[in-house]
Amino acid sequence: MATVEELKLRVRELENELIKCKQKRCAEDAGGSQTHHRPRIEKMSAEVVDSNPYSRLMALKRMGIVQDYEKIRTFSVAVVGVGGVGSVTAEMLTRCGIGKLLLFDYDKVELANMNRLFFQPHQAGLSKVEAAEHTLRSINPDVLFETHNYNITTIDNFTHFMDCISHGGLQEGQPVDLVLSCVDNFEARMAINTACNELGQIWMESGVSENAVSGHIQLVIPGETACFACAPPLVVAANIDEKTLKREGVCAASLPTTMGVVAGMLVQNVLKYLLGFGKVSYYLGYNAMEDFFPTMSMKANPQCDDRYCRKQQEEYKRKEAERPKQEVMDEKEEEVVHEDNEWGIELVSEVTGEDDATDPVPDLPEGITVAYTIPGKEREVASAGDTVEDTEQSLDELMAQMKRM
Amino acid sequence: MATVEELKLRVRELENELIKCKQKRCAEDAGGSQTHHRPRIEKMSAEVVDSNPYSRLMALKRMGIVQDYEKIRTFSVAVVGVGGVGSVTAEMLTRCGIGKLLLFDYDKVELANMNRLFFQPHQAGLSKVEAAEHTLRSINPDVLFETHNYNITTIDNFTHFMDCISHGGLQEGQPVDLVLSCVDNFEARMAINTACNELGQIWMESGVSENAVSGHIQLVIPGETACFACAPPLVVAANIDEKTLKREGVCAASLPTTMGVVAGMLVQNVLKYLLGFGKVSYYLGYNAMEDFFPTMSMKANPQCDDRYCRKQQEEYKRKEAERPKQEVMDEKEEEVVHEDNEWGIELVSEVTGEDDATDPVPDLPEGITVAYTIPGKEREVASAGDTVEDTEQSLDELMAQMKRM
Repeated sequence: MATVEELKLRVRELENELIKCKQKRCAEDAGGSQTHHRPRIEKMSAEVVDSNPYSRLMALKRMGIVQDYEKIRTFSVAVVGVGGVGSVTAEMLTRCGIGKLLLFDYDKVELANMNRLFFQPHQAGLSKVEAAEHTLRSINPDVLFETHNYNITTIDNFTHFMDCISHGGLQEGQPVDLVLSCVDNFEARMAINTACNELGQIWMESGVSENAVSGHIQLVIPGETACFACAPPLVVAANIDEKTLKREGVCAASLPTTMGVVAGMLVQNVLKYLLGFGKVSYYLGYNAMEDFFPTMSMKANPQCDDRYCRKQQEEYKRKEAERPKQEVMDEKEEEVVHEDNEWGIELVSEVTGEDDATDPVPDLPEGITVAYTIPGKEREVASAGDTVEDTEQSLDELMAQMKRM
Repeated sequence: MATVEELKLRVRELENELIKCKQKRCAEDAGGSQTHHRPRIEKMSAEVVDSNPYSRLMALKRMGIVQDYEKIRTFSVAVVGVGGVGSVTAEMLTRCGIGKLLLFDYDKVELANMNRLFFQPHQAGLSKVEAAEHTLRSINPDVLFETHNYNITTIDNFTHFMDCISHGGLQEGQPVDLVLSCVDNFEARMAINTACNELGQIWMESGVSENAVSGHIQLVIPGETACFACAPPLVVAANIDEKTLKREGVCAASLPTTMGVVAGMLVQNVLKYLLGFGKVSYYLGYNAMEDFFPTMSMKANPQCDDRYCRKQQEEYKRKEAERPKQEVMDEKEEEVVHEDNEWGIELVSEVTGEDDATDPVPDLPEGITVAYTIPGKEREVASAGDTVEDTEQSLDELMAQMKRM
């Protein structure tokens, strides 16, 4: 119970605050935020002082979680799609002190995006990559940023995108370490898949459903795990891109919660993969209605429509066969998720007969639903006499096909 | 001589004036980013246009997820602790268009916080609540903000905190709809617990472990589910507050990923609870190393040290007994998590004998660990001849006890 004296004190305090408020202008805004930026930091330090932005990350070493946290600075990651999931993904990686970020998007910031984290109303009208780079650079000037304001699915841009990821590493001429798909439509996912299969580039997929209450992340290792063309993706985002939505007055729902959780799961998987701690998930779903988080793994499909996927599978088999037996056994023991995951599921059977056209998605665990089926036209193309493997289709032809879908 | 009632009235008047002044100050500001702020929106619309910040949220109705999304504007939520989890929690609620947010913190923004989402380097030195309010208001000016830059665990502030949550609702004189604990230490959690038990205020707990790779959220309904004093909290944040950390050169690790996931799970649970969709979780854990998300529920402990908890339990029992039988059955069918949750666990047995001092945490599911045990001193105080119930301890005495711990 407050006494009269205490209340009098509080009244005095409030009166003083009120006077100050009335006198003051929002001084912190006057000069813009740019003046207060922190300087770049040459070397990550574990020193526990208020001024060290890396102390809480370097503490992961002392806690026995990560052996060499500084290694984060040697990695380059491409984020394709800087929307509800991609922007938060980029911010998390920036705050973790990633070496380099490549951002790809062709959309503009709109007030309609304000129900998701990251962008702010004053950025409306700016390109997403431009606005994102500005904010991210002010958060952490130690990160190198490279932005590309274009649609990766057009032929020219796709070629440029391929070039970027195959030469965007921190070492001269080296590829990026990881590509993250944070896009919201089928076409863009397929383009990333095509590029990564051809380049043998490891990538992670992410997606949020049209009704905003489920999402997933998935690790794709070309030749080893199922690619986007091997099996229909599971619980992914709307098969309608933003343009279609706008044109048709349809509007997919979205929530900052679901997108924040998916971005968090994605970047956590990235950190585990790059810094070598914990169990890297091959597939992790999020069902927000039930707070259910299914995991599983999927092997590559030997009849995948993507010829580069099949080529990578051959390469993977060859390498596996070449490895000394002991090593193979060790590896198998480590990657438990390959043998017996929680659900004991392998979405793709290992049959190799060309005419075995059974459904590649036999039994899904409860709570996982298939969001897409591979469009009929593509299936027809692939099975029409000359198979994709025989025709040696050029990338451009493939892209043209995709655009016709 | 002014009476206590008159002074209290004056305090509330001044607080309101101060809030108005701060709002006005920011609105008047002509320079910097303030000019681009969007105007306030009187009524939420579902119209699908780029300029509508609510279109993607209102789409939850069309998608059949939420029946009455606009209701979000009628709720008032208190967020205690505006750090790694609390700031993101506040941002998500702001972007969702919550009616009113009350923010409590006494810390300043430091560069050492930059490995977590939300705050930016140019805000270093500002109080967390001030910096947060500024950013949040520019993101969504439709939300009402009330900030308190103090430590809730001191006696005076605790009294004020109690007053705020019991009168901080959007309807004159009504309590807030929910209190969210996003604090990083035992003392503050215990203060929130004490206040909510006394007021019968429903709240949610959140926490992240010291090693940054696990966290949890928990719903506390006084009298019905276990409170913070009923059973040791599970997988919570470091039992060391920031000051201790700084003084002793110890440094808890933290990650934007884990904190983002925990904030996302927390606000998702808040939305489900307030807007009535999906299954509200009583306890949801996150083990980042294994991507494991345990759920469970815990009943209140009849021997809880907190006398208000025991009082609320009596009240709950009385109400349950008064309810028509049919209704009780319906309720039970709905709240499946109470009967048979995934793990079939009840942490607290329903024995009522005073001397049954067995461990209230018998069998924890794999992956859940107890982060605290109730400090020995407190146990001693409670069991030393006169029980808490008999002594009718005042709040101040309880607070003083807590401070001695």
